[in-house]
Amino acid sequence: MSASLDSGWFTEVFDGHGSAFSLKVTDKLHEVQTPYQHLEVYATETFGNLMVLDGCVMLTERDNFLYHEMIAHPALFTHADPRRVVIIGGGDCGTLREVLRHPGVEKVTQIDIDEEVTRAAERFFPALTASNDDPRAELRFADGVKWVDEAADDSVDVLIIDSTDPVGPAEGLFKTDFLRRCHRILAPGGVMVQQSESPLYHSGSIIRELRRDMLEAGFDSVATLPFPQPVYPSGWWSVTLAGKGRDVTAFRESAAAAAELPLDYYTAEAHRGALALPPFMRRLLEA
Amino acid sequence: MSASLDSGWFTEVFDGHGSAFSLKVTDKLHEVQTPYQHLEVYATETFGNLMVLDGCVMLTERDNFLYHEMIAHPALFTHADPRRVVIIGGGDCGTLREVLRHPGVEKVTQIDIDEEVTRAAERFFPALTASNDDPRAELRFADGVKWVDEAADDSVDVLIIDSTDPVGPAEGLFKTDFLRRCHRILAPGGVMVQQSESPLYHSGSIIRELRRDMLEAGFDSVATLPFPQPVYPSGWWSVTLAGKGRDVTAFRESAAAAAELPLDYYTAEAHRGALALPPFMRRLLEA
Repeated sequence: MSASLDSGWFTEVFDGHGSAFSLKVTDKLHEVQTPYQHLEVYATETFGNLMVLDGCVMLTERDNFLYHEMIAHPALFTHADPRRVVIIGGGDCGTLREVLRHPGVEKVTQIDIDEEVTRAAERFFPALTASNDDPRAELRFADGVKWVDEAADDSVDVLIIDSTDPVGPAEGLFKTDFLRRCHRILAPGGVMVQQSESPLYHSGSIIRELRRDMLEAGFDSVATLPFPQPVYPSGWWSVTLAGKGRDVTAFRESAAAAAELPLDYYTAEAHRGALALPPFMRRLLEA
Repeated sequence: MSASLDSGWFTEVFDGHGSAFSLKVTDKLHEVQTPYQHLEVYATETFGNLMVLDGCVMLTERDNFLYHEMIAHPALFTHADPRRVVIIGGGDCGTLREVLRHPGVEKVTQIDIDEEVTRAAERFFPALTASNDDPRAELRFADGVKWVDEAADDSVDVLIIDSTDPVGPAEGLFKTDFLRRCHRILAPGGVMVQQSESPLYHSGSIIRELRRDMLEAGFDSVATLPFPQPVYPSGWWSVTLAGKGRDVTAFRESAAAAAELPLDYYTAEAHRGALALPPFMRRLLEA
């Protein structure tokens, strides 16, 4: 048995999954109890700064590119002509930055309930908030579920649910009733995307249920895309897309290949590869 | 700061990478100091049995399919007609099982220096050793470097280096001189494949050096394929292929798509997707 980790480490235990991930930390930079959650920022030895919400790793400077590129670009290259984008959650602004890389996008509205997350990102993850002054970006700090309720029918092209896990503040974002409201505000041909947890841990539970709930909520097609994410449980994560009158298993592949975006992970080939799910996932999702 | 993990966990600290991965264990099933390394087997709460060599996670029952499928099938579907396969290392026999799924393979010789690994696999990972009685399989317990030295020129179609990390018993398997000898025993059109560590941690070091060394050793092309591997450092791993008079960036894609192998991860699409490296890797490998 190896030794326990001492107090120079931040450790997240993945309850129910019998695994844990640790990063060596050199300093605690920030800690605040917001009205919604407990927020901490650490300096790590090898992953840059680390943001933690309610004890769960949210992101590090070193590897957040994986998640942020994969929650943004597949959805945007699946929609035929995305102009009006809405992000629910996403307070660290990394997803917003990726969306704004698309020149055709005319307006991005981000609604995160917790302004402290954005303030911490501005201080400790400045690369992620570098596009916040883009005139196409609007940041609101409000209840995303309520915002969706009040939004007009058919008013959004791409809706991105960039939330924490389906417990705590984000619980309401994983319910069929909410998905139905998302469907309502999407214009015909619209695309919704939601982070959907670990392919290894959740293919037979959260991912399968989310896909079923999306179809029940009125969406016509769904697609789950896995990708590596070292600091999340199992080191492997996913997003799930849903289309309103659109097949989300196809995308603007030649546009994705031709776009010269300054990315680290996403490519047209990665998108196509991710759409072809590993056989074990297919079996669990179809069970 | 979260609490330290107590003694109910097995923790591997990734030295120099500032991260650690832990599995909750329920029992220690086996422990032996072999002539070559310290071997332990644990029962875990959620990953099945776990084999540890010199303190490093080798495999678990739950997620070894990723590594074993990706070290075997891409190389076999890259070669035009693989009949004679050699595995250096691979004592747990999981790679051997995958190779034997290919009906065209006539002979697989596996040379692992440590018989205790295979004996432990037979007891605690019986699914992996289930094909060991296949008449096409020959298991030898000997020094792989020496075996390669004594093998005839042009006598192998696919050579698989299924080793531990490039420290300790496997150190000699990561040297240019050894790669040159591998090149010698491969027949024209032959393919070599080697596990090549983490895309996140090692793209600018071990992977880049291995690719350079392969080309220096006489190989004509190289290709690195990343894939998820939750229990290895960073949860993301890779294999690197090298071709002797063969372009290993292409493969028998229609054969791979048509083969009805009972796999959990590998598909023709996954193979093609992996060949298109993430941009950050390309930049580091070409630096």
